[in-house]
Amino acid sequence: MTAEIVSVGTEILLGQIVDTNAQQIGQLLPQFGIGHFWRQTVGDNLDRLTEALRLALSRSDIVFTIGGLGPTQDDLTRDGIARALDDELIHDPEIEAHLRDLFRHRPEAWVGSQLRQAMRPRCSTPLPNPNGTAPGLICEKGGKTVIALPGPKGEFGPMLEGPVRDYLARRTQGGAIASRVLRVCGIGEAAIEDRIRHLIDGSNPTVAPYAKIGEVHLRVTAFAASREEAERMLEPVAREIREAFGPAVYAEGSQTLEEVVLDLLRGRRATLAVAESCTGGGLGHRITAVPGSSDAFVGGLVTYSNEAKARLLGVPESVLSEHGAVSSQCAEAMAAGAARALSADYAVSITGIAGPAGGTEEKPVGTVWIGSYGPGGARSARFLFRNSRQGVRERAVQQALILLRERLLEG
Amino acid sequence: MTAEIVSVGTEILLGQIVDTNAQQIGQLLPQFGIGHFWRQTVGDNLDRLTEALRLALSRSDIVFTIGGLGPTQDDLTRDGIARALDDELIHDPEIEAHLRDLFRHRPEAWVGSQLRQAMRPRCSTPLPNPNGTAPGLICEKGGKTVIALPGPKGEFGPMLEGPVRDYLARRTQGGAIASRVLRVCGIGEAAIEDRIRHLIDGSNPTVAPYAKIGEVHLRVTAFAASREEAERMLEPVAREIREAFGPAVYAEGSQTLEEVVLDLLRGRRATLAVAESCTGGGLGHRITAVPGSSDAFVGGLVTYSNEAKARLLGVPESVLSEHGAVSSQCAEAMAAGAARALSADYAVSITGIAGPAGGTEEKPVGTVWIGSYGPGGARSARFLFRNSRQGVRERAVQQALILLRERLLEG
Repeated sequence: MTAEIVSVGTEILLGQIVDTNAQQIGQLLPQFGIGHFWRQTVGDNLDRLTEALRLALSRSDIVFTIGGLGPTQDDLTRDGIARALDDELIHDPEIEAHLRDLFRHRPEAWVGSQLRQAMRPRCSTPLPNPNGTAPGLICEKGGKTVIALPGPKGEFGPMLEGPVRDYLARRTQGGAIASRVLRVCGIGEAAIEDRIRHLIDGSNPTVAPYAKIGEVHLRVTAFAASREEAERMLEPVAREIREAFGPAVYAEGSQTLEEVVLDLLRGRRATLAVAESCTGGGLGHRITAVPGSSDAFVGGLVTYSNEAKARLLGVPESVLSEHGAVSSQCAEAMAAGAARALSADYAVSITGIAGPAGGTEEKPVGTVWIGSYGPGGARSARFLFRNSRQGVRERAVQQALILLRERLLEG
Repeated sequence: MTAEIVSVGTEILLGQIVDTNAQQIGQLLPQFGIGHFWRQTVGDNLDRLTEALRLALSRSDIVFTIGGLGPTQDDLTRDGIARALDDELIHDPEIEAHLRDLFRHRPEAWVGSQLRQAMRPRCSTPLPNPNGTAPGLICEKGGKTVIALPGPKGEFGPMLEGPVRDYLARRTQGGAIASRVLRVCGIGEAAIEDRIRHLIDGSNPTVAPYAKIGEVHLRVTAFAASREEAERMLEPVAREIREAFGPAVYAEGSQTLEEVVLDLLRGRRATLAVAESCTGGGLGHRITAVPGSSDAFVGGLVTYSNEAKARLLGVPESVLSEHGAVSSQCAEAMAAGAARALSADYAVSITGIAGPAGGTEEKPVGTVWIGSYGPGGARSARFLFRNSRQGVRERAVQQALILLRERLLEG
């Protein structure tokens, strides 16, 4: 079986956005053994879109479209699919009811063009879109399939990973694949590849490393006659990876580092507070992205100015004047102060120089002190991240979670 | 004149890399008024590459290829171009001399396959590659042009911005474009299009809307004989947009909403504090992403638990027990409390139910109260965002900035 992607949007051609949605489909297809040899991108133009779809349908079994499902006149994907499949657009009262329901609380935003989204090719089945207005569509006609997905990331991702993944699994039953992701933190990608080169060079199972900020995900994938057999082939490779990296393997599957940290806290019935300077709230924001994080996370103090550090966290003036805000002493006082202010069992603090300005010879841009507080008192560690302002902030948040996890694992 | 990109590389189809080179060409073409309606991506396969090139040459004046110029057997772009242009590959002794010179100091790395890179279509002119081995190629035959560029970023970028830019300038002498982005907040995309439909339907200048979270960017683009003339054509359209949406146009160009808010604060020599519940630090994180935000932003309090709201912000227990944490009263007490705790002139607060759990009939998931404090006291407003947890949090942060800006504009 083969598939092809047609990305729709003048903003992609103009380079205003980069097409990471197509990348995500590209990563999914091999997991189902689906061949993928072509990709096309067209602007918001009905004739060219139809031509691209016809070409794709002539040579591929499944055609994915990305984008062009919204309410505006630029959104032509529904029309293009109907024309390329020689089908007609019909009005779907269920979609209309769903759309009207979405606008119940803000009738002023309802304009007639929203109804375009209630049209769909007759041969299509709508895919619910809990994160937006336009549904996705699976269109099946004449032995060919078009899967139409919305462009906005927050709508596209869940639809691809949910109903579309399920659909592809049903379509490709027979030859089966299984895969598992091992998540490794605190070791660089090159060092990881060096240690498990023989696994990465293997062909079945394959091991593919994906570098993220401050962590690497190792996807192990096996092909076999049955899902069970493929699953069995994964285990020896996963074991070898766990043995190679020990506790640096923080999770398997989709669990994130912040979820692991929250689980460790829950297991100890302990609470957490944070104190942030250069990250400005990024650590708290990341922790609270986890539903139910309120079980363990009580709150945080964003102390951007020195005055706030003194006032809200009780960092002694002498620490600030003698050692500065970016120091071991300040990081430890911040962590202890946050735990005290919020009556938390554990606390983490971040104070550093994210840049682009503010660096000195002794403390260059990228210098970050991370403090922690818990049973046994306060500690701190120094890091130097050679990244952009945004990169320094993301690395600092990641490193704070890594240190907190290590501390929680101690007991 | 029209151009089309053919990106070559199985690693792009598999999603192992994202095609930012094509994005960079996409950004360059409009600067020369070159139309760009198609993009194709193919793997490292000679037949498919040739087919893609023939299709591109049949409908576009200039075809860019990216990648596939290296020394390995996978590198097939030279062969594909020769076939698609009905040309032959010839050996270029100057390229060979350059290659051998590059390996002078590491003869052990020289393998015979390096010589593949000394082959080029007879109709081509090589483009020097100071940052790698394979030269780029400009091939001109039968009124069509193929420009072949290497894939590695460090080779691609300088070649595109240097000799290719110069070549395009010579080819398109005269014609120029200008564009400007107007940023509109607090009005939905469909409502915006409804109001300026006649501008969006126009052809020169064009107006293209791009929806972001809680804001829409309108890109106005004009083509003319000279840059100055194109610039002049933009202004009447920009004025009409500003008149249509009034103060909802918060910036022109690349300035972000948080930068605008920080500038307004600086203009008033005023300071800002934030209090966040469901966004967990996201508002502070976004504001502090701006370098130099410490001029105005003093800090924030992330009060995730009710206890933290009472303790750090002084939200009265009676408010929490009678109205709950997601209420007008709590939002206003949080904003006033943050301003007090951090001695700030202005404060914004966010308290809501991001979901997926925690909703009730009266306060469904997505309910968010946003409070503000400033000269004149505290205020609040209620919102209902129908998004995922992540979406609710992002919309809430955006809305807090919108309300803060409105308040700062009052005086």
